[in-house]
Amino acid sequence: MAEQRSISLGDLARQAGAELSGDPTLTVDHVATLEDAGQGAVTFLANTRYRRFLATTKASAVVLSPEERDGFPGAALVSDNPYLVFARVAQLLLQEDESEESARVHPTAQIHPQAVLAPNVRVAAQAVIGARAQLAEGVVIGAGTVLGADVRVGAHSRIAANVTIADAVMIGARVVLHPGVVIGADGFGFANDAGRWVKVPQTGSVQLGDDVEIGASSCVDRGALGDTIIGEGVKIDNLVQVGHNVRIGAHTAIAGCVAIAGSTTIGKGCLIGGAAGIAGHLTIADGVTVTAMTGVSRSIRKRGVYSGSTLMQPSQEWRRNLVRSGQLDEMYRRLRELERELADMKKKQVGNNELH
Amino acid sequence: MAEQRSISLGDLARQAGAELSGDPTLTVDHVATLEDAGQGAVTFLANTRYRRFLATTKASAVVLSPEERDGFPGAALVSDNPYLVFARVAQLLLQEDESEESARVHPTAQIHPQAVLAPNVRVAAQAVIGARAQLAEGVVIGAGTVLGADVRVGAHSRIAANVTIADAVMIGARVVLHPGVVIGADGFGFANDAGRWVKVPQTGSVQLGDDVEIGASSCVDRGALGDTIIGEGVKIDNLVQVGHNVRIGAHTAIAGCVAIAGSTTIGKGCLIGGAAGIAGHLTIADGVTVTAMTGVSRSIRKRGVYSGSTLMQPSQEWRRNLVRSGQLDEMYRRLRELERELADMKKKQVGNNELH
Amino acid sequence: MAEQRSISLGDLARQAGAELSGDPTLTVDHVATLEDAGQGAVTFLANTRYRRFLATTKASAVVLSPEERDGFPGAALVSDNPYLVFARVAQLLLQEDESEESARVHPTAQIHPQAVLAPNVRVAAQAVIGARAQLAEGVVIGAGTVLGADVRVGAHSRIAANVTIADAVMIGARVVLHPGVVIGADGFGFANDAGRWVKVPQTGSVQLGDDVEIGASSCVDRGALGDTIIGEGVKIDNLVQVGHNVRIGAHTAIAGCVAIAGSTTIGKGCLIGGAAGIAGHLTIADGVTVTAMTGVSRSIRKRGVYSGSTLMQPSQEWRRNLVRSGQLDEMYRRLRELERELADMKKKQVGNNELH
Repeated sequence: MAEQRSISLGDLARQAGAELSGDPTLTVDHVATLEDAGQGAVTFLANTRYRRFLATTKASAVVLSPEERDGFPGAALVSDNPYLVFARVAQLLLQEDESEESARVHPTAQIHPQAVLAPNVRVAAQAVIGARAQLAEGVVIGAGTVLGADVRVGAHSRIAANVTIADAVMIGARVVLHPGVVIGADGFGFANDAGRWVKVPQTGSVQLGDDVEIGASSCVDRGALGDTIIGEGVKIDNLVQVGHNVRIGAHTAIAGCVAIAGSTTIGKGCLIGGAAGIAGHLTIADGVTVTAMTGVSRSIRKRGVYSGSTLMQPSQEWRRNLVRSGQLDEMYRRLRELERELADMKKKQVGNNELH
Repeated sequence: MAEQRSISLGDLARQAGAELSGDPTLTVDHVATLEDAGQGAVTFLANTRYRRFLATTKASAVVLSPEERDGFPGAALVSDNPYLVFARVAQLLLQEDESEESARVHPTAQIHPQAVLAPNVRVAAQAVIGARAQLAEGVVIGAGTVLGADVRVGAHSRIAANVTIADAVMIGARVVLHPGVVIGADGFGFANDAGRWVKVPQTGSVQLGDDVEIGASSCVDRGALGDTIIGEGVKIDNLVQVGHNVRIGAHTAIAGCVAIAGSTTIGKGCLIGGAAGIAGHLTIADGVTVTAMTGVSRSIRKRGVYSGSTLMQPSQEWRRNLVRSGQLDEMYRRLRELERELADMKKKQVGNNELH
Repeated sequence: MAEQRSISLGDLARQAGAELSGDPTLTVDHVATLEDAGQGAVTFLANTRYRRFLATTKASAVVLSPEERDGFPGAALVSDNPYLVFARVAQLLLQEDESEESARVHPTAQIHPQAVLAPNVRVAAQAVIGARAQLAEGVVIGAGTVLGADVRVGAHSRIAANVTIADAVMIGARVVLHPGVVIGADGFGFANDAGRWVKVPQTGSVQLGDDVEIGASSCVDRGALGDTIIGEGVKIDNLVQVGHNVRIGAHTAIAGCVAIAGSTTIGKGCLIGGAAGIAGHLTIADGVTVTAMTGVSRSIRKRGVYSGSTLMQPSQEWRRNLVRSGQLDEMYRRLRELERELADMKKKQVGNNELH
C-alpha cells in the first residue's frame, strides 16, 4: 500500500519541523528501531531504557530531544517533541504514491447503480456499495467491505477490508476505519412488556467527524433518536464499544477494549485508558483522563485524572484481602467504636488521675 | 430497509395500547426527540432531565405516563409503561413494507445447490450459503455473510452483513443478528500434554431460540460436547463473548462487552450489566441482576441484585487507597488486636477503679 | 468439515496413549456427553459432579483416571491425564478425510495473479488473496476471508470465514484462525501535536508461530517498528486484543476478552484468565498465571499466580463497602493513631499502677 522513498536529511528536518545536527545532504529512506537500524534508517529513542543502544546504533540519523542529543556523535533530528517529529518522518518516508496505483473499482465489487463514486475512488474485490451511497474523491474501500444505502464517505477516507457501514451513516474526510469495524448497527434498546423485550427501533444514525480513526472490530451504534456523534480527530483503538447516542468530543483518544454505554457525552481532548468502562447517560468534561480498567459510574465535571482499577497481588495475599474488602463497612464501624471507647477511657483516666 | 408511514393518532393509540388525550384524526408519520420533533412527529420523555423541553416541543404527540401528562396541553399517548408504548409506536411508524422490496437472491450470492431456501428469502451480494442449509420464509441474509453447511434459520430472521454462522448452527424464528456476529466458532478447549496444548474437538453446536437478538461482533461458541443454548427472547448487546456450552434462560438481557466463560448456566429474566465477567461452570438463578463491570466468580442461587465494581476517584486519592487495599488483612488484624487490648485495659481500669 | 470414522477400542487406546480395560475388538465411532452417550460413543467425566451418571451411562467406553475407574463395570480408557486422552480420542474419531474433499479454489475467490498457492490449497467462495501471497500445502481459506499482499501462510493452516490478514503478515504451519479474526491492523500509535493526534505509521508486521490458534474476532496489531510476535503453540480465545509489538512466549494460553497493551512481553507457558487487562511496556515471566479480570499494571518477575479481581456481593452490602474503599487511607491513619494513643494510655496506666 505504501512505498519507501529517499530524502535528504536537510529536507527531512525542514519538513518534519526539527533542527538538524549533521550532514544535510545525507539521504535516508526508511525508519527502524534503534537496535535494528542500518544505513539509510532514521530511528528514535522509544524508551529511555533503550538509551544504551544509542552508542552503537548504525542508523543514519536519530530523532532526539535536546537533552538526549548531548554527547551523541551521530546525525540527529532534534526537537522538544521527538515522538511527533518521528511520526512525521515516518509519514514522509512512507508517503503513498497515489499516481502509481491507479484508481479502479474491482470487477467483483458490487456498486449499486444509484451510488455515486468520485472518479478516483478505489473499491477492492467483493466490496458492496449500497443505493445512493456517495464516495468522495480519493476514498479507498477494502475487500469484502459493505456500505449500506445512503452512506456518505468524505474525501480521502480509507476503509479497510471486511468493514460494515449500515444505512445512512455519515463519514467525514480522511477517516481511517480498520478491518472488522461496524458503524451504525442498532443500539441496544428494548422496552420490557411483562418480562418480554420489545425492540425500540433505532431511527438515528452515526456521524464520524474528519480525521477520525477507529481500530479493528470496534463498534459504533446508531442513535435511537438522533445520531451518535464522534468528533473530529477522535482516535479509537480496537474492540471498543460505543453505544447509541454517545457523543465524543474532538481529539479524544480511547484505548482498546473500552466500553461506553448509551447517551454518554465525553468531552474534547480526553484520554480513556484501555478496558475502561463508562456507564450510560453520563457527562465527562473536556480534558479528563480516565486510567486503564477504571469503571466510570458517575459524571466527571472537572478536568483531571481519575482511576478505579484494583491492586494485583500474589493470589494468596489477594485472597486474604478480598475477604476483608467485603468487611470494610464493619471494619469502619469497629474502628469508630474503638475511637469512642478510647476517648471514653481517656476521660475516665483523666478523671482517675485528677482523683489522685 | 424500512419506510415511514402515516397513521392517525386514534389508530396509533389503539394499536400501541395507550390512552389518547387529543384529536384522534390527527396523523403522525415519524418519531423524533423531544427537542427536534416537529409536525407529524411522536416523541417521548426519555429522561426526566428533559422535562423542560415538554413546554416547547413542536411534536404532534408525546408518549407520557399519567403523572407526566398533568398540565401538558398537547396531544398525549398515555400509559403506565411509556417506553413500551413508544417502542410500539416507532415499530408501527417504521413498519417494513415487505411487498415492495421483492424477494430476491443477488446474482453474486453463492448458494450451495443442496441448500434449501423458502421462495421469499432474500440474500444480499457476496453472501455464501452452505450445503444443506435451510432458510425459512422471510429470512434476510446480509451482504458478505457466510452460513456454513447444515445451518437452519427460522422464519423472518434477519442476519446482517459480514456475519459468520458455522456449520450445523440452529437459529430460531425472528432472530436478529447484527454485523460481524460469529455463531458457532470452536469453544476454547485444550488439554495440556507436558506443556503443549492439544485441541479438544468441539463437536457440539449452537441453538438460538426464537426472538433472540445479538449485537455487532458478539461471539457465541459451539459446544464441546452438546450444544450452547440461548433461550427465546434473549437480547445480547455488542462485543459479548459467550463460551462453549453456556446456557442462557429466556428473556435475559446482556449488555455490551460482557464475557461469559464456558459451561455456565444463566437463568431466565436476568439482567447482566455492561463489561461484567462471569466465570465458567457457574449457575445463576432466574431474575438475577448483575451490575456493570462486576466479576462473578461463584454461583448465585438467589434472585437479587449483585455488584462488585470499584470506586472511581481522582487518581491521587485512588493511589493512596490502592496501597491500603493491599494491607486490608493486616489492618483487620491490627484492628482486632486493638479491640483485645482495649478490652484488657478496660478490665484493668475497672480493677483500678474498684481498688480505690 | 469433518467425518466420523469407526475404530476398535484396542486401536483407539493404543493411539490415544491410554490403558484399555474392556474388549479391544469393540468398535466406537463418536464422542458424546456422559448423559447423552449411546452405543458407539466414547465419553469422559468432565466434572466430578457428573459422577452419578457413570453408573447409568450407555456409552461404549469412558475415559477415566485410575481412581475413577475403580468400581466402574464398563469399558474404560484409563490415563493419568484423561482430558488429554479424550482430546486425542475425539481427534481420532473426527479425523479429517482430506482425500474426499478434493482441493479446489472456488470460482468466485479472487486470487491475485502474483499469489502463489500450493496445489492442494482450498479457497472458499468470495475470498480474496493479495499479490505475492504464499499459501503452503494443505492451507484452507474460508469464505469472505481477505489476505493482503505478501502474506505467507504455513502448511495445513486453517483460516475460517470473514477473517482479515493485512499485508506482509507471516503465519506459521498448522495455525487455526477463527471467523472475524483481524491480524496486522495498525497499532494504536499517535503523537500529540498541540492537542491534535498525528499518526505514527505502523511499519512492522505480525509473526504467528506454528500451531497458534486464535479465537473469533480477536485482533493482533502489527508492530510500529519491528513485529508483533506470537510464539508457537500459543492459544488465544475470542475477542482478545493484542497491541503492537507485544511478544507472547510459546504455549501461553489467553482466555476470552483479554486486553494486552503495546510492547508488553509475556513469557512462555503462561495462563491469562478471561477479561484480564495487561498494561503496555511490561514484562511477565515464564509460567505466570494471571486469574480472570485482573488488571496487571506492573511487570511480574516471578513465576506464580497473581490476582486482582474484586468481590461480588449483594448490591446493598457492596454499596456500603464501596464507600469505605474510598476511605481506606483515612481508616489506616485512624487505626495507626488509635494504636499510638493506646500505647500511650498503657504507659500511663502502668505509671498509675506503679504510683499506687
